[in-house]
Amino acid sequence: MTTNRRAFLTSAALSGVAATLPFSSKAFPASDPTPDYDLLDKTIRQPVFKKELFKTPVIIDTVELLRFKDTFLCRVRSKDGAEGISVGASQQLKSLYPIFVNRVSPFFIGKDARDLEALLEELYVYASNYKLQSLALWVPVATLEFAILDMMGRISGKSIGELIGDIHHKEIAVYQANSERGITPEETIRQLKEQLSLSHAKAIKFKVGGRMSHPEYPDKRSELLIPLVRKTFGDRMVISADSNGSYDVAEAIRIGKIMQEYNYDFYEEPVPFDWYEETMLVAKALKIPIAGGEQEPSLHNFRWLIANNSLKVLQPDTFYFGGMVRSMKVARMAQVTGKLCTPHITGDGFGYVYMMHFISAVPNAGAYHEFKALSKELPFQCKTSSLVSENGVVKVPSGPGLGVDIDPDYIKKHIVVKA
Amino acid sequence: MTTNRRAFLTSAALSGVAATLPFSSKAFPASDPTPDYDLLDKTIRQPVFKKELFKTPVIIDTVELLRFKDTFLCRVRSKDGAEGISVGASQQLKSLYPIFVNRVSPFFIGKDARDLEALLEELYVYASNYKLQSLALWVPVATLEFAILDMMGRISGKSIGELIGDIHHKEIAVYQANSERGITPEETIRQLKEQLSLSHAKAIKFKVGGRMSHPEYPDKRSELLIPLVRKTFGDRMVISADSNGSYDVAEAIRIGKIMQEYNYDFYEEPVPFDWYEETMLVAKALKIPIAGGEQEPSLHNFRWLIANNSLKVLQPDTFYFGGMVRSMKVARMAQVTGKLCTPHITGDGFGYVYMMHFISAVPNAGAYHEFKALSKELPFQCKTSSLVSENGVVKVPSGPGLGVDIDPDYIKKHIVVKA
Repeated sequence: MTTNRRAFLTSAALSGVAATLPFSSKAFPASDPTPDYDLLDKTIRQPVFKKELFKTPVIIDTVELLRFKDTFLCRVRSKDGAEGISVGASQQLKSLYPIFVNRVSPFFIGKDARDLEALLEELYVYASNYKLQSLALWVPVATLEFAILDMMGRISGKSIGELIGDIHHKEIAVYQANSERGITPEETIRQLKEQLSLSHAKAIKFKVGGRMSHPEYPDKRSELLIPLVRKTFGDRMVISADSNGSYDVAEAIRIGKIMQEYNYDFYEEPVPFDWYEETMLVAKALKIPIAGGEQEPSLHNFRWLIANNSLKVLQPDTFYFGGMVRSMKVARMAQVTGKLCTPHITGDGFGYVYMMHFISAVPNAGAYHEFKALSKELPFQCKTSSLVSENGVVKVPSGPGLGVDIDPDYIKKHIVVKA
Repeated sequence: MTTNRRAFLTSAALSGVAATLPFSSKAFPASDPTPDYDLLDKTIRQPVFKKELFKTPVIIDTVELLRFKDTFLCRVRSKDGAEGISVGASQQLKSLYPIFVNRVSPFFIGKDARDLEALLEELYVYASNYKLQSLALWVPVATLEFAILDMMGRISGKSIGELIGDIHHKEIAVYQANSERGITPEETIRQLKEQLSLSHAKAIKFKVGGRMSHPEYPDKRSELLIPLVRKTFGDRMVISADSNGSYDVAEAIRIGKIMQEYNYDFYEEPVPFDWYEETMLVAKALKIPIAGGEQEPSLHNFRWLIANNSLKVLQPDTFYFGGMVRSMKVARMAQVTGKLCTPHITGDGFGYVYMMHFISAVPNAGAYHEFKALSKELPFQCKTSSLVSENGVVKVPSGPGLGVDIDPDYIKKHIVVKA
C-alpha cells in the first residue's frame, strides 16, 4: 500500500505546484546515492508565499499578543485597516510569550507583509534569535505568521493553503492516534477499538518504547503489541508506530524488523530526534520508511536528513517549525526526492486547522493524518467545514484566510500581553 | 605555539581529574580515523558533580527567581537552611523567565541536591523540555544549577570548580576580543590597539565575515584584515578570528587558508553552527583548528563534532549549554581526544566568574580566554580575587561556592518573579 501511494505521488502529484522544480526519479533508492544537495538548495530557494497576488504594499501597523486565561491570540493590523487573527499554541506560549513580545513582534512593525518570506529569514538573525533555535523561537514566529497569512487571505480572498501553493487536498483522511504508554498490550487494544468506533479511521498510530531513551513498561510491551495490533485490526488497516526516541541503533533496528514483518506503514523517531547519524543508520538497515522531524528546528538539518535518505516521511509541525513557509520548504524537499510529508500536529486550539490548510497545499502529503479535536474553549463559526471527522475524513475550510471566524465577543475578553 | 600547548596537555595535564578516563593518543591525527564513540560514551557516563562530598541529604525546599530592573537572581534554599545564590544571564532571562518558573524550577522542589547530575538528565524529559533544546531551555537550567552549586559549595567549603573537578588553573590568561563588524580594517586595528593598552592581553580575537551567512561590509575587509593584524601585532601575538557562521564551505576554506598563512591560532564558526557536515568538511580541508560550540545545545551533537574531528577547540558556554555538569562533559570528551576547551562567555552579570570556575577545573583549557567586565550594577565583595585583568591575567576566586558575596541589601531590592 505504501509503495502504491508512493508510485502515485511520483507520477501524478508532482505535476502540480512543483512543475517548475526539477524532479528526482530516485525515489527510495535501494542503493546509496550521493546526496543531491544542489537539488535541495534549488528547491529551498523557490518562493513559497504568493507575493504576486498583492499589487500594493500591506504595511504592518500593529502586532498584538492577546491572552484570556490560558488562550493566546495574535492580532495583526495593517496601516490600511486590514486585520488578521491567529490562535497560538497556548500550552507553549504560556512559557514563551516574552519571546514573542521582546524578540519577534517588534521586528515586523512597519514592514511590508508581502515580504513575509524575506522577513522570516531576517528575523532569524535579528536580536540573535538563531541562538534560540527550537520551538521556543518557532512557536512565537508561527503564531505571528498565521495571523499575517489570515490577514493576507482576507485581503486577497484566498485560503491560507492558496497563499502557499495550489490546492491538492480538499479533504483529509485521518489516522487514529493512541498516545498511552505504561499500559498492557491488551489495554492498548481496548483503547484503540474504542477510539476507532468513534473516528472510523482507516489508519492507526500507537506508541512503542519508553520515550526518550527511557526503559519500557510493561516489559516487552512493544514486541507483543506490534503483532497484536495487526492481528486485531486486520491486513487492510494502515498501521504505524512512534517510539519518541526510545532506542539506541541496535534496539531500534530490532523493533523495526518486527514492524516490517507485520507490514507497518512507517516507524516514527526510532532514536532521539537529535541523533542524526544514528537515524540514518537505522534507515539504512530497514525497509520500513522512517518518519520524523517533529522536534527538528533547523531547515539545514532537514535538508541533511532528506538528502541522506534518513527520513522518508517528513513530519514538520507548522507551529514547532515556525510556520507554513518554512514547513512548505521541507515538504518540497521531500517532494523532489520522492518522499512524503505527514506533518506533526500541535493539539492546542486551532492546531488542526492550521495543519489542514498546510496539507491542502502539499501534493506529496501522506495518505492519513493525525486528528486532535478542536479546543472547546474557543467559540467560532466555520461556514465551509464541520471541522469534525466524518467517516474518517475532515473537510478543509475554504477561506478566505483561516476560513474560521472567532466570536468577536470572545476576542474582546482578551487583554494585550506585556513581558 | 598551539602545538606545544597541545603536547603539554596530552602528556601532563591528563594525569589529573581524568586519571580514570582512557586517553587517546590520536591527538589531531593527520589521517581520518574511525570515530571512537565508545570512548566518548564512556567519558560522558563518568560523573562530574562530587556527590561523595555530602554525607547527608540536602533537600531543596524553595527555588526562587528574583528580579530587580533587568537583573535576575536565583535563590535556592534547603530544608536545613542552607542557601545558594546565582546571578542569571539577565539579557536572556528577560525573555525566558516563564520557562524557568513553569518548566524548570518546579521539578527541583523536594529533590536531594546531591542527585544534581541525575536530576539534570531527568529534567530534560520532564514537561517535554527536550522540545525546547536551545539556550531557551539551558539558560534557565544553568541559572538554577549555579545556585545549587553555590549552596553545595557553601555547605562543603569548596569552590564551584572543586565540586566539578580538581583545580588545574588558579589564574586565567585572557585574550582581547574585538566584536565590531562593518568598520574598515584600519579602524579595527585602532580599536584593538586601544583595547590592548588597557588589558595587556597576549592574545587577540576579532570578527571576520558578515555574520550568519550575511555579506561582509566593507567588501574584502577580512582578507585585508587577517594579514594586517599579524603585521601590526607581530609574531608573538596569539591571534584568532571568529566568522560567526558567515561562509559556505568553499569561502570558509579560502578564508581559513589566509589565516593559516599568517599562523592564526584557531578559526571560530567558519560556517553556521548547525551545519555539522560542512563544519567537518572545512576542518578536513584546513590545518588550523576549527573552534565552535557556543550555540550547540545537544550533548549528542558535541559528541559527533568531537568524534569526527570537526571541532578541535570546544566552546560550550556554561549558561547557553545548561551549566557546569553538562559543559564539563564536553570538556572531558575534548580531553580524551586531545582537543582543547575554550568556553564561550556570556557577558552578562557574573558570566565571567562562572566561566572562571569552570575553566579552573578543566585540565585541557585553552591558553587564553575571553574577558568581559563584570556588571557594574551588581554590588559585591570578593576576598580572594580583584576580578580584574592584571597584566593580562585574572585570578579565580577560591570559594566557598561562587566565592563572591552579593550585597544582601541589594538582594532585598529584588522581588520574586511570577509567570
